[in-house]
Amino acid sequence: MIKTPYLLFLGDAPDQLAVKVAKGIRDWRPEYSVGQLRLNGCNADLGLPDMTLEEARNAGAQTMVIGVANRGGVISETWKEMMLQALEQGFDLASGLHKLLRNDHLLSATADKHSRELFDVRVPQNEFPIATGVRRSGKRCLAVGTDCSVGKMYTALAMEKEMHARKMKATFRATGQTGILITGGGIPLDAIPADFMAGAVEWLTPDNDPDHWDLIEGQGSLFHISFSGVTLALIHGGQPDALILSHEPTREHMRGLPGFKLPTLEALRDLSLQTAQMVNPDCRVVGISVNTAALSDEEAEDYLNEVESRMDLPTTDPYRHGAARLVDALETFE
Amino acid sequence: MIKTPYLLFLGDAPDQLAVKVAKGIRDWRPEYSVGQLRLNGCNADLGLPDMTLEEARNAGAQTMVIGVANRGGVISETWKEMMLQALEQGFDLASGLHKLLRNDHLLSATADKHSRELFDVRVPQNEFPIATGVRRSGKRCLAVGTDCSVGKMYTALAMEKEMHARKMKATFRATGQTGILITGGGIPLDAIPADFMAGAVEWLTPDNDPDHWDLIEGQGSLFHISFSGVTLALIHGGQPDALILSHEPTREHMRGLPGFKLPTLEALRDLSLQTAQMVNPDCRVVGISVNTAALSDEEAEDYLNEVESRMDLPTTDPYRHGAARLVDALETFE
Repeated sequence: MIKTPYLLFLGDAPDQLAVKVAKGIRDWRPEYSVGQLRLNGCNADLGLPDMTLEEARNAGAQTMVIGVANRGGVISETWKEMMLQALEQGFDLASGLHKLLRNDHLLSATADKHSRELFDVRVPQNEFPIATGVRRSGKRCLAVGTDCSVGKMYTALAMEKEMHARKMKATFRATGQTGILITGGGIPLDAIPADFMAGAVEWLTPDNDPDHWDLIEGQGSLFHISFSGVTLALIHGGQPDALILSHEPTREHMRGLPGFKLPTLEALRDLSLQTAQMVNPDCRVVGISVNTAALSDEEAEDYLNEVESRMDLPTTDPYRHGAARLVDALETFE
Repeated sequence: MIKTPYLLFLGDAPDQLAVKVAKGIRDWRPEYSVGQLRLNGCNADLGLPDMTLEEARNAGAQTMVIGVANRGGVISETWKEMMLQALEQGFDLASGLHKLLRNDHLLSATADKHSRELFDVRVPQNEFPIATGVRRSGKRCLAVGTDCSVGKMYTALAMEKEMHARKMKATFRATGQTGILITGGGIPLDAIPADFMAGAVEWLTPDNDPDHWDLIEGQGSLFHISFSGVTLALIHGGQPDALILSHEPTREHMRGLPGFKLPTLEALRDLSLQTAQMVNPDCRVVGISVNTAALSDEEAEDYLNEVESRMDLPTTDPYRHGAARLVDALETFE
């Protein structure tokens, strides 16, 4: 686990898009977000207090999170200077950059010298067992998509927030870099060796209280031929009780795969349920989450109504309208 | 690629079962199998000429393959002495042991000193791209199973042998350790990071002559919840034109998963075809391969006849009756 709370490092981000990771942390874990650190030329702003390293330490921050991305995922010299200072002043560092902190000789030596930790969230921190399929106590919900990047992580985080507001027991379980940085823990499923994928997901979602829900971060799509195996491992390791179907209605082909059409929601429902029921015969599909960002208010409403009546399932855009109706569906489980 | 031909190292194998890997090489690549090297106390015999290192070098052997397994997959001191001598005498070493040759300091230093290579076939030798799903020329056949370890590798190797006898263009494509040692190349799919599984299978089965068949080694099962993601990546990366269904009729539950029943051949056919057609709409199921080792001659014949008439597909045990009928089915492709 990454130590919280965080100082969010925005570097010299050219725009707001470059600090997407930091924004995710601020949005979903405001209690972890003590402040932001910006270098000269930074054009991004999360609306958090600007802090020096010293101010952030005094405010309790334990880890400086590299909340900014750049082309190639490299560690720029400008950033590195501040990262070294952070280590010297007692911060751990956490990063999802392609270039690993641990492979930078100077960062690694400085961390050792000051007994600080470097978290490269792209790299699995554990070895994982082979999945056993043994049923676990507690309940699990997983969003599955017609495609990659249709809002599965957002859906799970929005449901967690709504469930906590209702005092339900719920834990978002991160399976990707951004999710890990947001919550401080999880598994980088995309980097886990093939044989251990499903076992890693079992490890991530252990026995729990009967009325506790794990909200497992979805990945890929059963219909996305580049990553479908990851998705199936998530379904078989996650043993979901409830599935949410996720969709983006304006996409013309599968992400990165020209010529590959998106499946219908019906096809997604049937294949997801068939595969999930191999490991949990009681699994059901409980709702649909649609990313309507590309639609007007009226178009979105029409689309959601059409899907809801066609599929006979609560259908919502959790970003636009909140996750309440999806959480209502989970409340129907005994 | 591992350099061929091989000297097969049987060590001090307590019995024939311990040299299963070496037996696979002898059976399927007799032309690679120059001789066997046995230590004192070896109770296994492949019927190959017993050779000293020097004799094997003179007979042209390039690589000494560790064709013996032991408890824990460790490198015993007795073996190591001979492995060091082999490196000194100009052999490369290849191994599928759990303990990696490269992590043994003395072996590694000796290999460096004599400019020899150590092949640990459990470890991917390349980085692989993300799968693109672009259609490739040439044809591909994949065996999919109702369970793990039902004879998928054997089926593909037997088909390759039959196809070569008929002067058809065919290449067995190894996706596991034993297959890699047998053929000298391939990918250890179980050890490849999740996001690159399907891309690695694409890499393994590139564009080829229109009348060339890749016989891709199957792994796991879509219905085996520990490894299903690996199987789906194999289907989506492999882009098969032809599927063979593989089955073992006496198994009481999925391998290693008490309580999980095997699927029917009908369920296997439908799910395999549905997922394969996402990436190759022309894919068809062309035959059934049954491992009847646990049945008497008469039981086997009855079982095969029953399945053949029920499924309306050529059904055979390639070990017992040869792979001719499965290859006949491939010959029907234009």
